Amino acid sequence: MKTNEIPERLSAIRQFMTEKQLDVFIVPSTDAHLSEYPPKHWESRKWISGFTGSAGTAVVTKDKAGVWTDSRYFLQAADELKETGFELFKMGQPDTPDMTDWVIEQAGKGGTVGIDGLVYAASDAKALKTKLDAKGIRLETSLDPFAVIWNNRLEIPKNEVFTLPDNVAGESVTSKIGRINSELKKLDADGLIIVTLDAVAWTFNLRGNDVAYNPVAVAYAYVSEKETVLFIDPEKLPDEVAEGYKKHGIKITDYNDIFDYVAGLPGNSAVCITGNKINYKLLQTIPASCKIVDVPSPVDLMKSIKNQTELKGFRNAMIKDGVALVKFYMWLEKAIPAGEVSEVTIEEKLLEYRSQQDLFVGDSFATIAGYAGNGAIVHYHASPETSQQVHPQGLLLIDSGAQYKDGTTDLTRTLAVGKLTRQMKKDYTLVLKGHIALATAIFPEGTRGSQLDILARKFLWNNELTYWHGTGHGIGHFLNVHEGPQSIRTEENPTQLKPGMVTSNEPGVYRANQYGVRTENLIVTQVYKKTKEFGTFYNFETITLCPIDTKPISKKMLTKDEVKWLNNYHKMVFKKLKNYLNEEERAWLKRKTKAI
Amino acid sequence: MKTNEIPERLSAIRQFMTEKQLDVFIVPSTDAHLSEYPPKHWESRKWISGFTGSAGTAVVTKDKAGVWTDSRYFLQAADELKETGFELFKMGQPDTPDMTDWVIEQAGKGGTVGIDGLVYAASDAKALKTKLDAKGIRLETSLDPFAVIWNNRLEIPKNEVFTLPDNVAGESVTSKIGRINSELKKLDADGLIIVTLDAVAWTFNLRGNDVAYNPVAVAYAYVSEKETVLFIDPEKLPDEVAEGYKKHGIKITDYNDIFDYVAGLPGNSAVCITGNKINYKLLQTIPASCKIVDVPSPVDLMKSIKNQTELKGFRNAMIKDGVALVKFYMWLEKAIPAGEVSEVTIEEKLLEYRSQQDLFVGDSFATIAGYAGNGAIVHYHASPETSQQVHPQGLLLIDSGAQYKDGTTDLTRTLAVGKLTRQMKKDYTLVLKGHIALATAIFPEGTRGSQLDILARKFLWNNELTYWHGTGHGIGHFLNVHEGPQSIRTEENPTQLKPGMVTSNEPGVYRANQYGVRTENLIVTQVYKKTKEFGTFYNFETITLCPIDTKPISKKMLTKDEVKWLNNYHKMVFKKLKNYLNEEERAWLKRKTKAI
Repeated sequence: MKTNEIPERLSAIRQFMTEKQLDVFIVPSTDAHLSEYPPKHWESRKWISGFTGSAGTAVVTKDKAGVWTDSRYFLQAADELKETGFELFKMGQPDTPDMTDWVIEQAGKGGTVGIDGLVYAASDAKALKTKLDAKGIRLETSLDPFAVIWNNRLEIPKNEVFTLPDNVAGESVTSKIGRINSELKKLDADGLIIVTLDAVAWTFNLRGNDVAYNPVAVAYAYVSEKETVLFIDPEKLPDEVAEGYKKHGIKITDYNDIFDYVAGLPGNSAVCITGNKINYKLLQTIPASCKIVDVPSPVDLMKSIKNQTELKGFRNAMIKDGVALVKFYMWLEKAIPAGEVSEVTIEEKLLEYRSQQDLFVGDSFATIAGYAGNGAIVHYHASPETSQQVHPQGLLLIDSGAQYKDGTTDLTRTLAVGKLTRQMKKDYTLVLKGHIALATAIFPEGTRGSQLDILARKFLWNNELTYWHGTGHGIGHFLNVHEGPQSIRTEENPTQLKPGMVTSNEPGVYRANQYGVRTENLIVTQVYKKTKEFGTFYNFETITLCPIDTKPISKKMLTKDEVKWLNNYHKMVFKKLKNYLNEEERAWLKRKTKAI
Repeated sequence: MKTNEIPERLSAIRQFMTEKQLDVFIVPSTDAHLSEYPPKHWESRKWISGFTGSAGTAVVTKDKAGVWTDSRYFLQAADELKETGFELFKMGQPDTPDMTDWVIEQAGKGGTVGIDGLVYAASDAKALKTKLDAKGIRLETSLDPFAVIWNNRLEIPKNEVFTLPDNVAGESVTSKIGRINSELKKLDADGLIIVTLDAVAWTFNLRGNDVAYNPVAVAYAYVSEKETVLFIDPEKLPDEVAEGYKKHGIKITDYNDIFDYVAGLPGNSAVCITGNKINYKLLQTIPASCKIVDVPSPVDLMKSIKNQTELKGFRNAMIKDGVALVKFYMWLEKAIPAGEVSEVTIEEKLLEYRSQQDLFVGDSFATIAGYAGNGAIVHYHASPETSQQVHPQGLLLIDSGAQYKDGTTDLTRTLAVGKLTRQMKKDYTLVLKGHIALATAIFPEGTRGSQLDILARKFLWNNELTYWHGTGHGIGHFLNVHEGPQSIRTEENPTQLKPGMVTSNEPGVYRANQYGVRTENLIVTQVYKKTKEFGTFYNFETITLCPIDTKPISKKMLTKDEVKWLNNYHKMVFKKLKNYLNEEERAWLKRKTKAI
């Protein structure tokens, strides 16, 4: 995209705003399904502003335009917004105005603010409306300027979908729908509207290819004791899939029919929704006579608790990923001194080795390969312009993952590619100590991730260091690499960690313009011991299979137990991968997993 | 109190209910000021039911009566409610009905439930009303049956109050009121209604004697830019106190005038309150035309951040308490083998030694002296009936504290009074490790207590043990031994720990019918280091001065750093107390604080 197209686009939206008598228009980064990564059809914030980061909101007035984004994207946004007419508003900086306050100031009393209710979370739209109402500003939610001004806008994708057999999903659609209906009964609700794409995918054992990295398909669903309806473009369903659903009593109807269907729900029925996981337009479509039961999504909780088949799939995916990573790291070791490695070639080679593995589908997110100072940019993604050559000196951070049809992976390793400073070793070891403390945690039933977060941070805190991102996010089973409802973060999240949840363990530390360190494995919550007197306790099983570089470790900083954990981890990695490697690879892995 | 008076009282309240056409009446344990410990005038729940625990709610219907209380009080309540006509409802047990559900069932559609809105938290009353409304049940909030049926009910106390000089409080009343008004400005509020007694006491540098253990006086206040009003029985104010307030422009008016005053607040003014810290009656008195700003009490946060003078007072109180405790423990050591010690004599002797100290006022709560199995009852208080003789065997837990005019203390020690089992030593050492981990925590600005809680628990969790109480509560400066808003607990509390806050550090472990272990010191949050790159970090200063028994320690379970902390702590205790002890006491303390 050439940035000089942006001023034209700004003119076009302003003309639209004038015609519709709007003073301000807000363009969020999400879509009708509140996706973290929307299909290109809905990338209107990128289109209007030229800013390509995953998080950010654009606001246009008659004579001003701004993009609000967070610290991860300050550098990138400043660069991309140059000469576009958009001003960068750095969220979290003391002198940056709050977006809503700014919108209120620009609209003024009696003014009108526009949003497209279809691509706005209902809870956010309601909060915005309350604030605007209080200031005498009208909120217009029914207009989509991009339907008018965006030439060559891509259609909503029509890619073919497929279903996971029960022996991969571990549970039939009928059983899942039965469980959802039981949950609805507990909530005194008659039906559930499912909007988020991974929740639809999980419920119907359905996978698609409509969004980068996430194997989901654009669809809505309604589940009730009376009937189950999947709203999806029928063209996307191969005959055998459509017939399979019909055989199990699932009604298939067109994607856009959801609005008429919801508008026609029987009055006085109780409809379960999740306020921040339904678009405002759809929420407004529910008849006023219905009772709205707004609760955290019951499907999200069910989806997060993996069954034994899903866990088996994860473990199998880890072996394949581990094998690909052995090959990749062997190549890397030779290629760096030969001067053949840049951040971009790392991404390409990782994809190449992974794509040789059984059931490989694609990357689970854009690979983060950050050498030296680029490693300190938490959500870095190398482009041909930024890509650094990797020299045999310092630290290289690689965060990557894959989608296999039997599981999703996500891991980070930080490698000594040459001589390290004392500070690099200390930082690396502090991060490793935190990683081990979380990996070995034992905690009672009922514990929330926010209670455990400090385990990963406290060694850093003892040295006045920290990192400004979460310690752990949930991971889908051949689904989104980021999923809720659980997390391990500083911020409070009422979700309790339950056996079967798969979460990341990824402390780090970042020295701006110098280097970044992060060590990430996936961990599964499991029952540790069922005791009587003090209740049931849980712990974690680490399932990622890839050596942790021992060169940057300052061994004197580790306790005996920490050394033991590392050596046992490496023993397991070798044992689980060795039968899938050739002799040279096995010898390499033997060296890399040697006890320290 | 003879329990056979209870059935008569039940008859009396039922007659009152019949006259007023009430189907159910709810009697909570609090008072008009939402106190944890109310003056005797408001101990109506104790009076009606005979149950004397600090937490519990009585409910009376035409033919049933029940008391809801938590696990701390199951044994005591079962005993006290015997043959009273009250049934015990054990909260948190799976088969115990929720109190509100039970009330709804008993009242039935069309029924009427009564509460006295004066002694009911507004937020609780509103939640109750919403639930009753939904079931077609009326809530009557204006009746106080105890005004009619409670003969010989004590009056609201009229004890004389006194003020703390500025060189003890560290801040003048004028300055505090100025700061409150600044906070109100930030909240766009015109005035603040202060209801809780410790908040009134702090604001006016006022102390009283109306409640056991808490040096507070029954009063309300209203603070605004325009005027500050203290609502208190004028009889309680010595002339010089009254004149002092008047000189600073503070209006004094009668206690009950608060209702007329609030009813007369100018329409359209914005009134700041805290929903769970104002009684329902007073909230209902605010004119409907006023805007209500319901936020966590700004006074509570200010009160929790102690100034340098208050901290100096605390440190001085710790020295005096430390000296009294040396004398007490020396006596105890000799008296146990002589067979002279029971749980009740411990309480008496502690009071005796403390009362010899300068500026001593009284105990800060009912001493918990629990020998053997009694130590496992978390909120135990020995009575002549339950008091155990202490034999030279096992563990003795003593949790006690004092009010001095310059500070409040609260500490727990667990002593080996004779031979210990291996399990006792292990439990004791696990608790100590947790205590040390919290005492030595370093954490960034913005950290909440719930994030740190695990530090005190994780060694116990590693052994499938835990404790079902908070790890730390805030402590007032010559005020309530329990105060908010901060806490260190498993449960989320959005309050951040700020420099100057004084909090307890009290992990424990309890083996039912065997013994209890708890080690408690008070800790002050302070700035550790102001660094640039990763922000400002805080840590704790431990201020309690009393040896921690080293006999039950299993030293091989401690790390070098933990041993170092303990030895340094003991070095400090000796150094700070030695000049206030006679030769024998000094020698004793030298032994008790010897490095391990």
